[in-house]
Amino acid sequence: MTPKETAEAFTALLKAGDHEGAARTFNAEDIVSLEAMEGPMAVCKGRAALQAKGEWWYTNHEIHEVTTEGPFVNGDQFLVEFTMDFTIKATGQRIQNSKEWGLYTVRDGKIAEERFFYPSM
Amino acid sequence: MTPKETAEAFTALLKAGDHEGAARTFNAEDIVSLEAMEGPMAVCKGRAALQAKGEWWYTNHEIHEVTTEGPFVNGDQFLVEFTMDFTIKATGQRIQNSKEWGLYTVRDGKIAEERFFYPSM
Repeated sequence: MTPKETAEAFTALLKAGDHEGAARTFNAEDIVSLEAMEGPMAVCKGRAALQAKGEWWYTNHEIHEVTTEGPFVNGDQFLVEFTMDFTIKATGQRIQNSKEWGLYTVRDGKIAEERFFYPSM
Repeated sequence: MTPKETAEAFTALLKAGDHEGAARTFNAEDIVSLEAMEGPMAVCKGRAALQAKGEWWYTNHEIHEVTTEGPFVNGDQFLVEFTMDFTIKATGQRIQNSKEWGLYTVRDGKIAEERFFYPSM
């Protein structure tokens, strides 16, 4: 699989709402996930740590809609744009039209790194 | 200068329309520029090569409007979103609402790499 083919198959699963399937199929065992924040959540390493982070997110947020655009490929990296409408359960605050970009690095047909960009909170 | 400060100062120049000043001030001597295409334009190395590429772009396209969003910072990298309205001079084709993202890597207060993402042409 070329990086472009990996990008397209991975993003197709995201567009179908199957984030768990996308992670299970494409995340490398030693994947590194980099959030744009300080503290212990900034860097996650390994599939189990990423799965726990994903479960934390879905437990603490109610998702109303996610629009996924891409992939936009350049070499062994690709970008995916997410537009989200969600509610933070703890506060009840609803956030609409929230943009976020995932930058994914492909190695041997798997995602070796994911790095997220978004406006400062 | 932290990567965040570099990102903000660089993007402020882009928002002011001063792409040349941004490049002159922040591009590292050995900057690498990666386009999402095949062929000799895919990789450019060094300030002079990037300047020539920029001149080629501005000579061959008439820019009507550029909207610049960002920077969105994560560690030593930041993302900038461009929305462009331009005409390809050779064909007269006008392209509106064209999205492009620049991913910049900062090293010692300078931009060491720029990598562009956009929909396939």
